[in-house]
Amino acid sequence: MIDIGSAARAAKATTRSLAALPGRIKDQVLKDAASRIRASESELLEANARDVQGASQGGATSALLDRLRLDPQRIAAVAKTVESIAVLPDPIGHVESMSRRPNGLSVGRMRVPLGLVAIVYESRPNVTAEAAALCFKSGNAALLRGGKEALHSNRVLARAFTDALTSAGLDAAAVTFVDGTDRDGVRTLARLSGVVDLLIPRGGEGLIRFVVENATVPVIQHFKGVCHVYVDRDADLSMAEAIALNAKVQRPGVCNAMETLLVDAEVAGTFLPPLVRAMRERNVELRGCERSRALVDSLSLATEEDWDTEYLDLILSIRVVDGIDGAMDHIAAHGSHHTEAIVTRHHARAQRFVREVDASLVLVNASTRFNDGFELGLGAEMGISTTKLHAYGAMGLEELCARKWIAMGDGHTR
Amino acid sequence: MIDIGSAARAAKATTRSLAALPGRIKDQVLKDAASRIRASESELLEANARDVQGASQGGATSALLDRLRLDPQRIAAVAKTVESIAVLPDPIGHVESMSRRPNGLSVGRMRVPLGLVAIVYESRPNVTAEAAALCFKSGNAALLRGGKEALHSNRVLARAFTDALTSAGLDAAAVTFVDGTDRDGVRTLARLSGVVDLLIPRGGEGLIRFVVENATVPVIQHFKGVCHVYVDRDADLSMAEAIALNAKVQRPGVCNAMETLLVDAEVAGTFLPPLVRAMRERNVELRGCERSRALVDSLSLATEEDWDTEYLDLILSIRVVDGIDGAMDHIAAHGSHHTEAIVTRHHARAQRFVREVDASLVLVNASTRFNDGFELGLGAEMGISTTKLHAYGAMGLEELCARKWIAMGDGHTR
Repeated sequence: MIDIGSAARAAKATTRSLAALPGRIKDQVLKDAASRIRASESELLEANARDVQGASQGGATSALLDRLRLDPQRIAAVAKTVESIAVLPDPIGHVESMSRRPNGLSVGRMRVPLGLVAIVYESRPNVTAEAAALCFKSGNAALLRGGKEALHSNRVLARAFTDALTSAGLDAAAVTFVDGTDRDGVRTLARLSGVVDLLIPRGGEGLIRFVVENATVPVIQHFKGVCHVYVDRDADLSMAEAIALNAKVQRPGVCNAMETLLVDAEVAGTFLPPLVRAMRERNVELRGCERSRALVDSLSLATEEDWDTEYLDLILSIRVVDGIDGAMDHIAAHGSHHTEAIVTRHHARAQRFVREVDASLVLVNASTRFNDGFELGLGAEMGISTTKLHAYGAMGLEELCARKWIAMGDGHTR
Repeated sequence: MIDIGSAARAAKATTRSLAALPGRIKDQVLKDAASRIRASESELLEANARDVQGASQGGATSALLDRLRLDPQRIAAVAKTVESIAVLPDPIGHVESMSRRPNGLSVGRMRVPLGLVAIVYESRPNVTAEAAALCFKSGNAALLRGGKEALHSNRVLARAFTDALTSAGLDAAAVTFVDGTDRDGVRTLARLSGVVDLLIPRGGEGLIRFVVENATVPVIQHFKGVCHVYVDRDADLSMAEAIALNAKVQRPGVCNAMETLLVDAEVAGTFLPPLVRAMRERNVELRGCERSRALVDSLSLATEEDWDTEYLDLILSIRVVDGIDGAMDHIAAHGSHHTEAIVTRHHARAQRFVREVDASLVLVNASTRFNDGFELGLGAEMGISTTKLHAYGAMGLEELCARKWIAMGDGHTR
């Protein structure tokens, strides 16, 4: 097995030529990789079957098995995502706000790659292809360290990229896949200062805490989402119900699903009884604060722990609050800087919520489920950062770049 | 003495209200702080005299004493900088690129503060006032940990801000100054995940390495500058000489001064002899590669170590290279991602240098000395980041902010 430090250094060695690679060539390689993914369908299904069998024998949950499993439709979707990244505009070399200083020096900022981006992730094999494509498109070398469950699937997917690179006469180390199950490898990676330019851990809280605790390289966290919908006294209550239902049940297992519903005491008596019925019809388990329990029958009591829990499941906690200040206090105390929504017709309160709530996406009259790179118009995404530095929220190609300053003079001196 | 962890938590507790503070109030506080700095001139001179005396007795170098020393002119300059920051536009709340998605959801990005910014620095007392002003203007709480040499001066400067805050009815913990000489305090600060949102170490290599090695919080490094000027075969040689002289001698002790001159072999025979004479007239000690020594009399030999050294002094190393590729190879091997300049009349080579050289500022036909927030138009600066993530190069108010996503819907669900 290859040493992760050597693999990272080999990947890093490709960054200078990658940064100068014309967009046309990058796009060709990505389209070729997509074709190779399609062409390897049967091999990929076979490899994936081994992964699923192994995980199943290892006692994996059905949720993990679902994330792990590939079928012809999912394979086609992965190939299509890679192609959709190929056709996005090249982010590299884009010059912003070039302007002249009073002394005649022209000053601007040019987008450049970060260098070597390392991604440590868990069971979803599609991350291998999407992360590889996003990094390559943005001129970065990628070091991908997938989870042990998806090992065989990941190898086949990674080979689509390395073969496409080799076939274009490029260094295959630009997309380097390493497998391993030990934390030692992650620790090594996290301490390769000067080699790894950015480390993105994607996975459970344990993995992310381990990386943050051990890293000397820059890290962008994709942390948990304890997302709220706040129903204001001036909400359109039927809109509020539709948004709450969508935020909770459309896909409860993802980070932008709502975990806690906050309701202004002024409308809780009207809003909650039908909302609770609608949630129960959709098999949502409900836990409420004392004030909501006084308004609705047989609501189990939410504990302090509930307010900080990302259920990722058909469970919802409900809290009656005193207006927008109560809602914002609750969010400041229990939110995870991920996604927060207000439902209201009141302009000033909508504006205040947007300004004052500290989250990677703050919405007015829309479901928390919109915190997603595709929905926000990025074309593709690397995930949702809850780190404020560099990228806050959905990370697209731009967030995989840095901006350097450039200046054009005519013999300028100080 | 106050515990640094408690001080940081108290500062952090002010961030929510700071983020919502109207620009008008922030500007009043900063103008008041500037007045208080001016009014405390005699007290400040006295405190500074104690610092200078202590440092001098401790055997400080003349360069350190110069950085440490305040006089009425420098005090006035500090107050003026604080005022100039007050009149900059408020960065907070600025909304970028609001646009509608095909489904009618309006999506944009809003600038918000980072939260608590901690700055660990060394002997310059003006950093206390400038960092406090930049953080406060950008809605951040500031935790300032200055060097022991400047302790008394720093205390007086910090009090100008805390008094201005208190007098405006605001929590003085928004600008918290802590002093200490031990690395333990820095280590504690660097590991306050969830409290310190950004840590900026400014100082020597030892301090920065210590912080990076120990930090679990996000760090932006302000590292050394091994800056180059490359004189291309198509350079205007008199312009090249003027730029090289300016880059080396105008202020040799700063990070954007040139340390190594690279000269295209095609013009080295013409360019170097007069350049060497001009440098010697300015008392610059010169060290050259073998090829440059063959062209110029009595040049001492540069060692491999010279190419990686930030002299911060009137010393220059000179290397003859084979064209732009030779120059870019040297910079890739020995540069510090700080500031790199090319002198040329050749358009395509200028473009190539700008695109391919990886540095926080790349210049054409201008001195490296322009890598400075004021010169680049930021109005003020927190320093020059050599970290690629979040801020690369001169950091102004914008770089002390994050951008959150905002979205306005009309009952949007997925």
